[in-house]
Amino acid sequence: MVYRDLLISMNTGEKSSSADNQQVSRNVDDDYFSGFVDGEGCFYIGFSKRDDLPMKWQILTEFHVSQNPGSKNVLNALQRRLGCGYLKPNHPKSSSDKTWILVVKDKNDLRKKVIPFFDKHPLQTTKRLDYYVFKKVVQMIEERNHLTEEGFRKIVELVFSLKRETKKRYTKEMLLAS
Amino acid sequence: MVYRDLLISMNTGEKSSSADNQQVSRNVDDDYFSGFVDGEGCFYIGFSKRDDLPMKWQILTEFHVSQNPGSKNVLNALQRRLGCGYLKPNHPKSSSDKTWILVVKDKNDLRKKVIPFFDKHPLQTTKRLDYYVFKKVVQMIEERNHLTEEGFRKIVELVFSLKRETKKRYTKEMLLAS
Repeated sequence: MVYRDLLISMNTGEKSSSADNQQVSRNVDDDYFSGFVDGEGCFYIGFSKRDDLPMKWQILTEFHVSQNPGSKNVLNALQRRLGCGYLKPNHPKSSSDKTWILVVKDKNDLRKKVIPFFDKHPLQTTKRLDYYVFKKVVQMIEERNHLTEEGFRKIVELVFSLKRETKKRYTKEMLLAS
Repeated sequence: MVYRDLLISMNTGEKSSSADNQQVSRNVDDDYFSGFVDGEGCFYIGFSKRDDLPMKWQILTEFHVSQNPGSKNVLNALQRRLGCGYLKPNHPKSSSDKTWILVVKDKNDLRKKVIPFFDKHPLQTTKRLDYYVFKKVVQMIEERNHLTEEGFRKIVELVFSLKRETKKRYTKEMLLAS
């Protein structure tokens, strides 16, 4: 620990006690965040059964970024920069997973803050495709297209056109059957 | 696939066939790369048994970034920006893991290209500590300190002062015993 402390003070002038909760430099560029989100972020679209809705499904759109507790500072900085969202423990009941997550769910915040940010500072990996679909779906929901059969079907097709590494809870057939 | 293609052309003007090998935008900022590396990069220091060396251990210093094949474009762009390193399949013998990795091993490249880049565009997460130790070790090797018992011991202490998620092959005691 002595070496780490020495090194930190040598390189940054920070006191060692603040190492794990270091502030993000004041001059962090917006492009830093787009690179960071390209690696660590998620533009999530999910479906939840809701018999009271016209298409029987609720469409969930969420922007997420998670980090270990030591790097929560970056989530705070991104939250401040975007001017929306909230932080919470990612798995509050887990004793081993102590990660934090920045979440933006509010559709207005997504439309007016998150999407304009990533339009201006574009992603460069294949996550860009997730982002395009996300943006399109948020826009279709805003225009109430998701409440029509045609619009809902188009959203399902869009979401299932993306490669996913995680298993989906509902298949395309299940979503389009109702 | 039709929807995905439509969407891509709608948003970018790119042809769909180039979607998976899309070029990184020309105006990618250096800070994008520092954000990306903060999420996806690794400043690796390892030890390898070498009886012919004064301290009986070789010290390996490597900068790595890996990505799935669709996002190899970002690795290429970073390689071009840094002006060093090479790309290779990360696990050439695996049938499931098709990721690519950008590797910089050359000590001169690390010292003259990689380190100046991240000094100018600093990391913001706790990976910054890995970077400080990496930089210090590269510098100590350049100054031949690693060939003395005191220098070698200091390097081992530095490396083991970092939190690591993966299990180390050699313990601190094994390294300092010889």
